[in-house]
Formats: sequence, structure tokens, C-alpha cells
Amino acid sequence: MVGYEADKDALLRRLRRVEGQVRGLQQMVTDERYCIDVLTQISAATKALQSVAVGLLDGHLRHCVTDAIGEGGPVAEAKITEATAAVERLIKS
Amino acid sequence: MVGYEADKDALLRRLRRVEGQVRGLQQMVTDERYCIDVLTQISAATKALQSVAVGLLDGHLRHCVTDAIGEGGPVAEAKITEATAAVERLIKS
Amino acid sequence: MVGYEADKDALLRRLRRVEGQVRGLQQMVTDERYCIDVLTQISAATKALQSVAVGLLDGHLRHCVTDAIGEGGPVAEAKITEATAAVERLIKS
Amino acid sequence: MVGYEADKDALLRRLRRVEGQVRGLQQMVTDERYCIDVLTQISAATKALQSVAVGLLDGHLRHCVTDAIGEGGPVAEAKITEATAAVERLIKS
Repeated sequence: MVGYEADKDALLRRLRRVEGQVRGLQQMVTDERYCIDVLTQISAATKALQSVAVGLLDGHLRHCVTDAIGEGGPVAEAKITEATAAVERLIKS
Repeated sequence: MVGYEADKDALLRRLRRVEGQVRGLQQMVTDERYCIDVLTQISAATKALQSVAVGLLDGHLRHCVTDAIGEGGPVAEAKITEATAAVERLIKS
Repeated sequence: MVGYEADKDALLRRLRRVEGQVRGLQQMVTDERYCIDVLTQISAATKALQSVAVGLLDGHLRHCVTDAIGEGGPVAEAKITEATAAVERLIKS
Repeated sequence: MVGYEADKDALLRRLRRVEGQVRGLQQMVTDERYCIDVLTQISAATKALQSVAVGLLDGHLRHCVTDAIGEGGPVAEAKITEATAAVERLIKS
């Protein structure tokens, strides 16, 4: 089981939209569009990716981490350590 | 002229690689791969996009902003205001 | 009870260090130190703050969220929604 | 000469305000305020620092980098390389 099971279709739609944004970026570069416009689109794609990440994290806490805490002990501890590390990577990226 | 003219091919290659990462993310979701592994890949794709942005900004300063400063006056002022605003969007995204 | 109870002293020490960094920044500005050096110090202070945030979040998940999940029901749901929102603010800041 | 010379007083005021926010954070921890409220304040202080950085960068481009581009040659190139590296550190912090 994964934390995003119920939202899988919505998640795939969002990722396909990000793929479209990245392909749009390639078209902009091919067309030699103005640097600042390309940068603005990169900011938009980055935001979209980060927003997908926040949704995934929410599902992960709500399902995987919640289940692990139900079990308790070192399993729960390890799940929280892992979740915090994932948040740290997101903040730094 | 755009600031990334000389680096257009390298830029397109990097964007195609990011597109591959985003398609890889869709495959991971389809395969119901573990949430944390998906998040790690999102962090990697975000970093790759931000790194493309830094390269674009560098070229923009080196060519477009440099040219505008050569002209001087309000053109140069406006170019710098615009570049700072782009950096602000990157920092917030 | 708060999630950082056991780490309160370490947390205060880290925040006092950040305060020292911000006072150091004022001294740099007073001394008219080179812009890039001031920016480097701002990056360091920002990283230190974000690192304090990650530690707080870890303690929050390990104690407050874990307790709420033990209770279950809407209390747990609300705690997770709140934690995700906090992560979203950190990512955007 | 530094890029923030004309804005030195405003810059110092903003940094003193950030110092106040960081001291406020210490008070919150001492008072054992709720983790999420502390995290919200950390996000606010981080945003304030990043905003100071954007202002500094703007002044740096407008004065130091503009002067270097006036001189041209390797001095200008080096200044732009250095500015881009500073932006990269800000994005990653």
C-alpha cells in the first residue's frame, strides 16, 4: 500500500501537466523566447512539482506514517526519521 | 538575441533530461512505488530545474543585462529590476 | 506538552546562534562589507533557521502528531493537515 | 563603495527587525509555545531574511556589477560569475 493510492489518478494528471510545462520550456528555448519568460516558466514548473510533493507527503503521513505509529516502537521511529529527512530534501531543493 | 543563444543545445538537453525525470515520476506512481522514493525523485527534478534556471540567469546577466548596461539609463535600470524580480520568484519557488 | 520539550536547551542555543548571525549581519552592513559577503552570511543564517525548523518538525511528528494518531479520528486528521501546511510554508519560505 | 550604501539605514532597520523575530522565537521556545506556531514564526523570519537578500542583490547589480560592466573585460565576467553563485546559494538556502 502507498499513501497516494486513492489519489493516484489526480497525481498522474498533475505530473502529466508538469511534463507539459517542461516540454513547453523546450519549445520556448527552441523559439529563442526571452530569458526572463523562460525563467518565469521554470518557477511555475518548480512550484507545481513542490505542490505535488506536499500532496504526496500529506498522504504519506496520513497513511504510511499513521499505520507505522499504530504499530509503534522502532518502526514508527524509523518512519518519522525518514519523513523528516524527505522534508529536509524538499526544503533544500 | 537571447542570453542562452550559445548554450541552446546544452539547455535543451538538460530540459529533456528533466522531462525524462518527470516521466519517470509518472512511471513510479503507476507502479505504486514507495512515497518517500517518489519524493526523493521530485527533489532531484526540482534541483535540476533550479540548476537550469541558474544557468539561464547567468547567461541573461552576461549578455542581455550587460548590453542594457552598455546602453545605460532607464533601459539598464529596467533590466536590473526585471532580473531581481526573476531571482525573487526563483527563491520563492 | 510540546514536541521540543526534551531539546529545549539545544533549541535555544541554536536560536541564540542565529541571533548572533543576524547581529553579525548588522555589523557587516555598518562596516560596509562587500555585498556578496553579506549575501553569503544571509544564506548561512537562512540555512541555520531552516535547520532549526526541520528539528522542530521532527519533534512535532514524534510527539504531538504521534499522540494525536494514538487518539485517532478527527484530532489525528487535523494534526496531519496542520503539519503538512507548516511544511508547505517552510518550502515556500 | 558598496551596492547598499544609499539604503544602509533601511537595511539595518530590516536586520534589526529580523533580530527581533529571532529573539521572539527564543521567547516562544522558553514559554513552550506550540510547535506549529514556532514553525510559522521561523517561516516568517526566513522570508524576511530572503527579502533582505533580494534587496541587497538588487543594489549589487545596480551599482557594483554595473560599474564592473562599465570597465568590461575579465572584471565584468568575474563579477557576474560571483553574482550568479550568490543567487545559487540563496536558492539552495
